[in-house]
Amino acid sequence: MQVTRSQMLQFLCLLFCASFIETRYTPDWASLDSRPLPEWYDEVKFGIFVHWGVFSVPAFGSEWFWWNWKGAENPAYVQFMSKNYPPGFSYADFAPDFHAQFFDPDQWADIFEASGAKYVVLTSKHHEGFTNWGSPNSWNWNSVDTGPHRDLVADLGAAIRKRSLHYGLYSSLYEWFNPLYLSDKQSGFKTQEFVERKVMPELHNLVNRYKPDLIWSDGDWEAPDTYWNSTGFLAWLYNDSPVKDVVVTNDRWGAGCYCKHGGYYNCADKYTPEQPPKHKWEKCQYTSKHSTVYAIFTSNPMQTTFMLSAPKTSYNTVVTLLGNPEPLKWAPLETSGFIVVLPDLPFSPAEAWTLKLDKVA
Amino acid sequence: MQVTRSQMLQFLCLLFCASFIETRYTPDWASLDSRPLPEWYDEVKFGIFVHWGVFSVPAFGSEWFWWNWKGAENPAYVQFMSKNYPPGFSYADFAPDFHAQFFDPDQWADIFEASGAKYVVLTSKHHEGFTNWGSPNSWNWNSVDTGPHRDLVADLGAAIRKRSLHYGLYSSLYEWFNPLYLSDKQSGFKTQEFVERKVMPELHNLVNRYKPDLIWSDGDWEAPDTYWNSTGFLAWLYNDSPVKDVVVTNDRWGAGCYCKHGGYYNCADKYTPEQPPKHKWEKCQYTSKHSTVYAIFTSNPMQTTFMLSAPKTSYNTVVTLLGNPEPLKWAPLETSGFIVVLPDLPFSPAEAWTLKLDKVA
Amino acid sequence: MQVTRSQMLQFLCLLFCASFIETRYTPDWASLDSRPLPEWYDEVKFGIFVHWGVFSVPAFGSEWFWWNWKGAENPAYVQFMSKNYPPGFSYADFAPDFHAQFFDPDQWADIFEASGAKYVVLTSKHHEGFTNWGSPNSWNWNSVDTGPHRDLVADLGAAIRKRSLHYGLYSSLYEWFNPLYLSDKQSGFKTQEFVERKVMPELHNLVNRYKPDLIWSDGDWEAPDTYWNSTGFLAWLYNDSPVKDVVVTNDRWGAGCYCKHGGYYNCADKYTPEQPPKHKWEKCQYTSKHSTVYAIFTSNPMQTTFMLSAPKTSYNTVVTLLGNPEPLKWAPLETSGFIVVLPDLPFSPAEAWTLKLDKVA
Amino acid sequence: MQVTRSQMLQFLCLLFCASFIETRYTPDWASLDSRPLPEWYDEVKFGIFVHWGVFSVPAFGSEWFWWNWKGAENPAYVQFMSKNYPPGFSYADFAPDFHAQFFDPDQWADIFEASGAKYVVLTSKHHEGFTNWGSPNSWNWNSVDTGPHRDLVADLGAAIRKRSLHYGLYSSLYEWFNPLYLSDKQSGFKTQEFVERKVMPELHNLVNRYKPDLIWSDGDWEAPDTYWNSTGFLAWLYNDSPVKDVVVTNDRWGAGCYCKHGGYYNCADKYTPEQPPKHKWEKCQYTSKHSTVYAIFTSNPMQTTFMLSAPKTSYNTVVTLLGNPEPLKWAPLETSGFIVVLPDLPFSPAEAWTLKLDKVA
Repeated sequence: MQVTRSQMLQFLCLLFCASFIETRYTPDWASLDSRPLPEWYDEVKFGIFVHWGVFSVPAFGSEWFWWNWKGAENPAYVQFMSKNYPPGFSYADFAPDFHAQFFDPDQWADIFEASGAKYVVLTSKHHEGFTNWGSPNSWNWNSVDTGPHRDLVADLGAAIRKRSLHYGLYSSLYEWFNPLYLSDKQSGFKTQEFVERKVMPELHNLVNRYKPDLIWSDGDWEAPDTYWNSTGFLAWLYNDSPVKDVVVTNDRWGAGCYCKHGGYYNCADKYTPEQPPKHKWEKCQYTSKHSTVYAIFTSNPMQTTFMLSAPKTSYNTVVTLLGNPEPLKWAPLETSGFIVVLPDLPFSPAEAWTLKLDKVA
Repeated sequence: MQVTRSQMLQFLCLLFCASFIETRYTPDWASLDSRPLPEWYDEVKFGIFVHWGVFSVPAFGSEWFWWNWKGAENPAYVQFMSKNYPPGFSYADFAPDFHAQFFDPDQWADIFEASGAKYVVLTSKHHEGFTNWGSPNSWNWNSVDTGPHRDLVADLGAAIRKRSLHYGLYSSLYEWFNPLYLSDKQSGFKTQEFVERKVMPELHNLVNRYKPDLIWSDGDWEAPDTYWNSTGFLAWLYNDSPVKDVVVTNDRWGAGCYCKHGGYYNCADKYTPEQPPKHKWEKCQYTSKHSTVYAIFTSNPMQTTFMLSAPKTSYNTVVTLLGNPEPLKWAPLETSGFIVVLPDLPFSPAEAWTLKLDKVA
Repeated sequence: MQVTRSQMLQFLCLLFCASFIETRYTPDWASLDSRPLPEWYDEVKFGIFVHWGVFSVPAFGSEWFWWNWKGAENPAYVQFMSKNYPPGFSYADFAPDFHAQFFDPDQWADIFEASGAKYVVLTSKHHEGFTNWGSPNSWNWNSVDTGPHRDLVADLGAAIRKRSLHYGLYSSLYEWFNPLYLSDKQSGFKTQEFVERKVMPELHNLVNRYKPDLIWSDGDWEAPDTYWNSTGFLAWLYNDSPVKDVVVTNDRWGAGCYCKHGGYYNCADKYTPEQPPKHKWEKCQYTSKHSTVYAIFTSNPMQTTFMLSAPKTSYNTVVTLLGNPEPLKWAPLETSGFIVVLPDLPFSPAEAWTLKLDKVA
Repeated sequence: MQVTRSQMLQFLCLLFCASFIETRYTPDWASLDSRPLPEWYDEVKFGIFVHWGVFSVPAFGSEWFWWNWKGAENPAYVQFMSKNYPPGFSYADFAPDFHAQFFDPDQWADIFEASGAKYVVLTSKHHEGFTNWGSPNSWNWNSVDTGPHRDLVADLGAAIRKRSLHYGLYSSLYEWFNPLYLSDKQSGFKTQEFVERKVMPELHNLVNRYKPDLIWSDGDWEAPDTYWNSTGFLAWLYNDSPVKDVVVTNDRWGAGCYCKHGGYYNCADKYTPEQPPKHKWEKCQYTSKHSTVYAIFTSNPMQTTFMLSAPKTSYNTVVTLLGNPEPLKWAPLETSGFIVVLPDLPFSPAEAWTLKLDKVA
């Protein structure tokens, strides 16, 4: 077969130009999901996640403090408040006491680096809606206008990057008690005032100002991805933002895709259970070594049973709590997962417990 | 002349139906200004204005505290803060200390009524942007979410109305440090994000929820009335709101019309200077008795001279400070008004001083 | 009769030396009571008494706040605390919030002087035991170590004296909750640890440092004058202190002598009821003009009847409340005094009410 | 030799009664030092010391916060305060913020027990003078009157003893800023008002109420033991107190005896340097294993050199910092001890560093 000169040029161009042609993603999951996970993230074994916000002031329970207190009306939280604060004290009243007076970003970054972590993720805004930078869409409810009087996102980022660590930003989509969100919710998510006035402007602001290496999205579950403008935002992010090669943990954009890259499964040997967790409340990280799977949970469930929905058990499955010699009693759940009876959780300095699962799939 | 039956019916209808035909105002000043001032307001001689907000926490200077401190950087305010608060303390940090623990609306209303006042106006929101009701557009920067944890607008209103007093609400258009406002301002007021997302929703919310007898608008002066959507809002208010017969002090909607009804001139014998004050800073209320005009100012000007731009002086004009026997030195200003040399202001329990102006027009 | 030269010299010496011979008082009431009241105090008609202390922080009720709350467990106080403060909040916790940030002694003194008062009395220490100067016997419970961080006694004194007013200091003998006092009390006042370690050192410290023109003692009533070392202290004060000519309101030294000079009867025309008040709780000041006696009470009795034990009534006695036209109903008490039925107390800016008593003795 | 009946009885009595005759100690060091150390203390290898007090509120530096700030005027402390607190803020102002809201004595005791410690010592009162129980001699400057509103000494003690651990109480003799102490000091310790009114009553109160198994005294060094009434108190303690068999760390009673039992040397293999430390500031604990001595210091000296006065060095001595491979440079001091050049102290979670000393005596 003869090749014309024209054909030859076309062929060369294909070879040569390909690297210059930018793939543009379209705002749909098929296109967006085709994007490869940035390499560095596939390689690193260990990163650190920092929860920091107004919830750090009461320092009771977890970052879900506000919800547990006023949403779920969890008696432990209600009692803590009525015992230690005046009647009527509100969550917003905590903000000026978020002093952060000991925050030394370089000291933090030194410790992070020394730990061997390769990336650090900070909650730029958790479900409380308080932004750890001076967001113009969160007036007087951010770390510059009140409390620390400081751009925590910027200050930690500068220190992290001086040490060649990757810097990630967590951002919650929903905000438990934001009246704009609640109003959209009441409309059955037909209105999108909250997304237009708060979520989108803040995500753009965050990306443009801080150029994160990783965006850790969360808090989508009450609404569909169409409400959140997930595909639209991701398309902008991948196509036109200043951080086109950002890692995105895309499990929390309301698209039902949970297990693929990242999320809670970004550790070690990339154990991927066949089934994603069914329950959003399942605060558990998996890792595995050889045939053993470890499920790490970092908040005390404060109950005697604990459910894991992902791992598939068999008759031979053995569940133990590290630090506790006795195997634990467990029972399988319907299709996958199991329920386990916990012992009194032994003291652990770092407040983390690990269940060792032998013979699970 | 004979009148047909049909003519007769037409005539009767004109007589009879007129009272049922509602006048609708168009969103322009000609139409809006044609609306008569509600009668009650023309008749009452005396009302009370209450300034209350986050500025009541430092309780230093005036309700312009934030501006004086951070905008004008007035040394007296800067020093007060650096002497009494930690470095970096912000205005938003005051909010949780706005306790209002002694607020007894019935006690207040009793006093107001006993004073002989016929209406009471409360600052529902001053230039600080903090709303004294739970505005959904001012999340965590309102009296329900933080501080008093109470709907001050509702609670005072209920007590006022139990006593057959009229209830008015003051609302500032601009907010000194609201980032949305500042962004619109930077655009030369070509964008209207602040008006759309904050001013309009809050004014509607206020009117629909509290049905005020009087709306006291303020804070228009940096932008034209077209930016504020003044005529649009007023047309809605007069045509379709639940309080079509509301009194509106229309001097502060950005239309340059200052002197007509209300505003600062709503006292006593309706002294109306020929010229409106030239300077917005002129915090002075006029009243008159016979040929004498009284100019009352309630904040210490903290300077030895004071300008009044409205009253027209003559060679015979005599200016005295009540409580001080000596006539004061004064000099006329260009077309109207004068400048007066103040003595040391004698102590006055209620922090008000009155200049007595004899022989002015 | 001939007078020898020696007799003559003796006589001259008597005449001449007398003025140099200092009268020394002995520590007994006969001697101490023989001391004349300093003239200036007899002449002045009007002085001002300032209550200021930690009780000014809650600013609820009166200077008896602590007692009403924790001693009497008055429901109004208990509720105020449980409504506005966290459980367990203690009186001592108020102290750091006693900021006194607006305390301008010269401004105060100007007002006092302008009022026509000739003397000013400050609570150097009320029954709460908190000293308004840096008492070495009240470590961390005084205005220098905590709260204002300022010697209030010294600072007000300097301003008062610059204006030729007399400066008096109130000092409470007992301290409701001082464990040393409570221990002495439990012993039936046989031990005097509290007097030795607190009362005496502080009174000496106060007199030596601030040289008051008047000492207003109070709080003796639970113990005899022998416990308080009253005569010993007064003898030192009159004989050897730096202020031998000090005015002492000697009614509160535990000696039962109430009515003589000073105390609550130091006003105006020196109306002295024939009987001293029987009840210590009778917080009432008398003054008189011509044949009319005025009884002024400055705290709302919060009950509908009120007893006055001193004035002698007759059939013709008329009792009215100033500001209230109707004569009040009253009934005589056993030997002197009467009980009166109060109307609802009308609002009074300065929180003082005056009963006008016509035709009493 | 014949033995009379009487002699026989005397002899028997000597044999028999001896065990019933209580040894009484005389108030002198010879007698007091002859008392054997209670056995349990000789046997236990490990105890835990808890520093807790008002200094835990700023949580900056160490329990010497007040001294470093106001006594030494250490710039780091002065800056910390001026950066984070209003001007004039005093140490006493911290007290109400000593909330102890998370204090769960049983949780603490569980952890202590799990650690293998056999005794726990709490600072009942550190040099700040604030008592962690409701001392009647420290009114409004103790943990019951303010701050935690709780008897910390009692509450921790109850939990400790439920677990069969020994409970010790640390108590400081001197109080940096107590005016009574400062006054005694100014007299050259000729007066003893502070010891009579504060130290002695509080030590008796502490012993009688809480019956500690161990008393850890400290803070003697500015005054002789005669000022502190050391021998008198110890004689009472050993002879007549409810805890005659208490362990007393007798190095801090002003008698110069430092090295014998207890003190900083109560660890492990009872390494006793031949020379006691010369400098009181030497905050170093020694332990040894075989021929190696470990010197543990728990506060960052914040300087590049560090002196140890006790260990005797030789030419072969090698000093290393655990966690740091390089041997450190050192130079011998005059008779014993040495000075060592420290590296940058590597991060250590528990804030403790250990020097390993090989070939010292």
